[in-house]
Amino acid sequence: MRPSGRALDALRAVSLEPGYAKHAEGSCLVKFGDTHVLCTATVEDKPPPFLRNTGLGWATAEYGMLPRATHSRMRREAKNGQSGRTQEIQRLIGRSLRIVVDRPALGERQIVVDCDVLQADGGTRTASITGGYVALYQAAKSVFDSKTVSHLPIDGSVAAISVGVYKGKPVLDLDYDEDSDAETDANFVIKGDGRLVEVQASAEGAAFSEAQLLEMLALAKKGCAELAELQQAAIESLG
Amino acid sequence: MRPSGRALDALRAVSLEPGYAKHAEGSCLVKFGDTHVLCTATVEDKPPPFLRNTGLGWATAEYGMLPRATHSRMRREAKNGQSGRTQEIQRLIGRSLRIVVDRPALGERQIVVDCDVLQADGGTRTASITGGYVALYQAAKSVFDSKTVSHLPIDGSVAAISVGVYKGKPVLDLDYDEDSDAETDANFVIKGDGRLVEVQASAEGAAFSEAQLLEMLALAKKGCAELAELQQAAIESLG
Amino acid sequence: MRPSGRALDALRAVSLEPGYAKHAEGSCLVKFGDTHVLCTATVEDKPPPFLRNTGLGWATAEYGMLPRATHSRMRREAKNGQSGRTQEIQRLIGRSLRIVVDRPALGERQIVVDCDVLQADGGTRTASITGGYVALYQAAKSVFDSKTVSHLPIDGSVAAISVGVYKGKPVLDLDYDEDSDAETDANFVIKGDGRLVEVQASAEGAAFSEAQLLEMLALAKKGCAELAELQQAAIESLG
Amino acid sequence: MRPSGRALDALRAVSLEPGYAKHAEGSCLVKFGDTHVLCTATVEDKPPPFLRNTGLGWATAEYGMLPRATHSRMRREAKNGQSGRTQEIQRLIGRSLRIVVDRPALGERQIVVDCDVLQADGGTRTASITGGYVALYQAAKSVFDSKTVSHLPIDGSVAAISVGVYKGKPVLDLDYDEDSDAETDANFVIKGDGRLVEVQASAEGAAFSEAQLLEMLALAKKGCAELAELQQAAIESLG
Amino acid sequence: MRPSGRALDALRAVSLEPGYAKHAEGSCLVKFGDTHVLCTATVEDKPPPFLRNTGLGWATAEYGMLPRATHSRMRREAKNGQSGRTQEIQRLIGRSLRIVVDRPALGERQIVVDCDVLQADGGTRTASITGGYVALYQAAKSVFDSKTVSHLPIDGSVAAISVGVYKGKPVLDLDYDEDSDAETDANFVIKGDGRLVEVQASAEGAAFSEAQLLEMLALAKKGCAELAELQQAAIESLG
Amino acid sequence: MRPSGRALDALRAVSLEPGYAKHAEGSCLVKFGDTHVLCTATVEDKPPPFLRNTGLGWATAEYGMLPRATHSRMRREAKNGQSGRTQEIQRLIGRSLRIVVDRPALGERQIVVDCDVLQADGGTRTASITGGYVALYQAAKSVFDSKTVSHLPIDGSVAAISVGVYKGKPVLDLDYDEDSDAETDANFVIKGDGRLVEVQASAEGAAFSEAQLLEMLALAKKGCAELAELQQAAIESLG
Repeated sequence: MRPSGRALDALRAVSLEPGYAKHAEGSCLVKFGDTHVLCTATVEDKPPPFLRNTGLGWATAEYGMLPRATHSRMRREAKNGQSGRTQEIQRLIGRSLRIVVDRPALGERQIVVDCDVLQADGGTRTASITGGYVALYQAAKSVFDSKTVSHLPIDGSVAAISVGVYKGKPVLDLDYDEDSDAETDANFVIKGDGRLVEVQASAEGAAFSEAQLLEMLALAKKGCAELAELQQAAIESLG
Repeated sequence: MRPSGRALDALRAVSLEPGYAKHAEGSCLVKFGDTHVLCTATVEDKPPPFLRNTGLGWATAEYGMLPRATHSRMRREAKNGQSGRTQEIQRLIGRSLRIVVDRPALGERQIVVDCDVLQADGGTRTASITGGYVALYQAAKSVFDSKTVSHLPIDGSVAAISVGVYKGKPVLDLDYDEDSDAETDANFVIKGDGRLVEVQASAEGAAFSEAQLLEMLALAKKGCAELAELQQAAIESLG
Repeated sequence: MRPSGRALDALRAVSLEPGYAKHAEGSCLVKFGDTHVLCTATVEDKPPPFLRNTGLGWATAEYGMLPRATHSRMRREAKNGQSGRTQEIQRLIGRSLRIVVDRPALGERQIVVDCDVLQADGGTRTASITGGYVALYQAAKSVFDSKTVSHLPIDGSVAAISVGVYKGKPVLDLDYDEDSDAETDANFVIKGDGRLVEVQASAEGAAFSEAQLLEMLALAKKGCAELAELQQAAIESLG
Repeated sequence: MRPSGRALDALRAVSLEPGYAKHAEGSCLVKFGDTHVLCTATVEDKPPPFLRNTGLGWATAEYGMLPRATHSRMRREAKNGQSGRTQEIQRLIGRSLRIVVDRPALGERQIVVDCDVLQADGGTRTASITGGYVALYQAAKSVFDSKTVSHLPIDGSVAAISVGVYKGKPVLDLDYDEDSDAETDANFVIKGDGRLVEVQASAEGAAFSEAQLLEMLALAKKGCAELAELQQAAIESLG
Repeated sequence: MRPSGRALDALRAVSLEPGYAKHAEGSCLVKFGDTHVLCTATVEDKPPPFLRNTGLGWATAEYGMLPRATHSRMRREAKNGQSGRTQEIQRLIGRSLRIVVDRPALGERQIVVDCDVLQADGGTRTASITGGYVALYQAAKSVFDSKTVSHLPIDGSVAAISVGVYKGKPVLDLDYDEDSDAETDANFVIKGDGRLVEVQASAEGAAFSEAQLLEMLALAKKGCAELAELQQAAIESLG
Repeated sequence: MRPSGRALDALRAVSLEPGYAKHAEGSCLVKFGDTHVLCTATVEDKPPPFLRNTGLGWATAEYGMLPRATHSRMRREAKNGQSGRTQEIQRLIGRSLRIVVDRPALGERQIVVDCDVLQADGGTRTASITGGYVALYQAAKSVFDSKTVSHLPIDGSVAAISVGVYKGKPVLDLDYDEDSDAETDANFVIKGDGRLVEVQASAEGAAFSEAQLLEMLALAKKGCAELAELQQAAIESLG
């Protein structure tokens, strides 16, 4: 029934390549099928202004697309002047990654995770969170390895997946073709222990029922559990 | 237990004053306790560019705050250069109101709903959706009354309410003091028939459980049902 | 002869409601007929950069309009990117209010007066100055009441009114219909003691004579004297 | 008593050099003492959008300063993002010049007068209006000479001068040193026939009296009459 | 003598991967050592405004860097607000590629070549021109293959290389370490037939002699000849 | 053969008027025929941020055009939002002037050279560099005369000239008519001792040969030698 022939609860082929970028403290090239996102994590030795003299660290994210990552060419966006959609996505990525940062352990540092979409085919924000976690982990480990903090400033893992109601049925990890036709579109951000970080469900044409919300949640939990295992393997491969 | 002394499932005092503004096709001054939002609806006789020659109408929203609506003064924002938070809020308002617009019936027109916060005390986006619906309805009725459309281009009603986990317990309609301390923060947009339009739940400090999500949903359904009745009364008062 | 039926030297119904806003140090909702402006005054504990280490205080103003305060919807304006008209108005408001501030007594503080037009029907700048004075007074009094200054840092009162040549005759306090047709348009800012602060007279279509300038000045002095009494009553009502 | 040794009612040395620029349809290098402004007038063959299909023409002005026209270097300003002061000045220049344009005779054309200050020593806006009139006249004459309009689309002349209260006495045509110390600062725009176009008087420190306003007006009329003669001579020199 | 151990006249390892991007009409991932640039070419079916109704086509370029392509993180740049350096680079790329476009054959179309630096190690502009040519060729061929033009709208090939005076000696294809220390820095853009398109040589600290200019030119001709062969092979691999 | 009747190797009439501006530390009105540029040099007592605590000085340039310096009117440009062309020109001027600044001798100061084109007829960037050097010299001398540096912080002189291939022949110092038709366009910046500072040659329509590059270089050396003599005379006239 799905254009790709996938089962209703099947992820696309997912790959995570940590350490992809030469200069960054952490990085991961993440692929959810034809959606490719390069995530890099930069450690800055001072926190954002509102955290000065608090002893707490911070993590934030920026999201961008290469102009021809999509079917038709899009304009470049700077930090000021990003579209509402872009800002909404990067705020979601930032909040989601922050939940696993041990901010007192990190101390007055900031980790900036850049998620740049090289190629888009649906699910760029969920791929960004999932790959961004791996880049964040590597960067946090570099802080720990520099022996300037007492323990690794990461607390658990976090992944994200999209779910939608497509032709009346809940399906996992929508690609672009499905996303364009979905009646309801949802993104779930879930920790490695199964607890929820973000739930965002939107009716696209018609409203949806409580039962549909619960079916989508069940699919998302399955998908994020699989992603958590792939994240763990990627991190272990860093040695 | 709540700073205001309200029951866990109690709304603040809510009032809806339709027809507040002299020049606008629709308007409503909405108050959720000390949160006051002036909603005005403007009918434009041409649709946004992407709908030309489709026969379909559109509704959109802009959200703003007077500089001193809040405890400390904030800078003014123009249409370009709004903060990510502002854009996220007005996109949510716009999507939520669009769900009740009968776009073929409206034809190639656009209704712009401006939600300007005169005073803020938590819940400005949910007050905006709830009052914005009344302004939208009045504007749609003015189109219908001008006898240029075949039937009233509104399909059902929509309201919104915030719910949060505060000191470990789900509470309805958070004011500013509660909102600042909530562990989880959620907004629900629900139609008059009880179906869901938007679910947005975010962990603020720690992740939350599926059970907590369901408790929040139950509270929101109760609150939105009460708001739907107040909306109906306000609309009827317009004659 | 006037569309409203008013006498040539009659003000519209004027009301001043001090203390309208919950969060601001000073506030006043001012109405000149159907022109409604919400003025709020914010006390900032540091002066603008050019006054550091001078011991002097400052007052400034910002002026804005809600998008649908007018017959047709207007775009929102941020602090940067305001139209020339908006900047001219807020510079006039700021200069006019500054004349009554005892800057050495205020010390290195700044009072920012925001004048936001909720509904426009001509004379928004004169209403803003007149109501802005009341908000400024209340804010200055809050500084005095905090016992950090030696005396109330306000020196006299200030009000403003428009005058125009309409169908060949000078008339006081033009509403929108009159303003659109006036041959000459003038704004006078006058202290409570009758001395002049600002005179701005512009020929709209044809030049005007010295005699007409003097007739307009006489009307303005009468109008501002009436406004000064209303301001005094509003201030006394604050207790 | 004046730093320059001038009499209270004496202008600085004024020169008007029409035809200074090679490419422009009209131009004039105007000097009021050490204040030097290059005025150029450009004829555009279409009117601003709001005048399409009205048969009426328009004149407008832009004002700028070279970065080092002043004692300390200033930043460059583009058309968008000009300071409030710059916008106020160019709106005044535009309104003042428009009063002498015969807009039906000009037809659907626009004349843009650029006033660029090469060197500033007080009175740049009054020099701009006075020299701008000469550039405007030359440009209007070029339209007339092209035989596309029935008569010269200029109706009378216009000039401007500053007056101030300096050390308690009204003085004419303030230079920078006087302007910095003046208690009241006024600009008058007056037609060649003596009628008033703009009166702008501002108290700088203390309010001023009606008598002072009248004394300033008398000085301005004398100064503008002298400028009108110089303008006439400059125009005649064009042949 | 060179940090990399290369001979004075040796290029870095160069690779060109055409067809790298799924959505674009043309693409090439180009690597000059650790400098990696993703070039995509987009065919737009209308020309820029200044070419309407001329029958001529156009090619242009945009240049960008991922925020962490460099040693330290840089801010994102939008189309408006790019730094002077970025604009200078993309203007050079655009001019250089345009020289091989047969603009009458292309007709009223525009090809936009985006060059996005994934990783930077010196020479990003020369890699962009060299890889951009391959992407441009593939896009032009897609226009030809669509049978809407009479012949392939490409006339010859173009490549670019940097040369510098490093520790007193001219060296070919500087990497970042050499570039930072070079006394003179030059970029040459050369056609496949050996003729010159652009010469840009800048003294970094001291001026240079005519003899040094000629030595640099000789190295550049050798390097570009090698690049032209690699480009030819890449194009042939497309089939 | 040239529209102006000049010999192939002849400069236009060149004049340099140092000390033209009243307020600036250095200034020069430079004319290359009908191209007129006002160059002013401002001494700032602190260096740009990246040079703090290095003991080194800096020189930089800004380039602008009056709106009607050209055949058709152009928009004003601010420091942010300059076109790519403007930025490229002012970066070239800045680099070229910096080469003659003795940065350790200047100490932590910055000299800003503004080059404002009053009238344009081709070659504005080369006139700017040539006149900018005279303004820079005068400003540097004012620093030396203030006895705060040990020796004059200028090391040699620098001038610039354009050369092009016009109707197949290399010609010196192109005016606007020639520039519009040139097949190749080059700018050379050359020190007083004959060594090269910048070489920028661009094919406009067809590529050019190495022989043509050398012919252009020879012409440029002749032209810059003549300019160097005029610069020397201008500087000596300052006393």
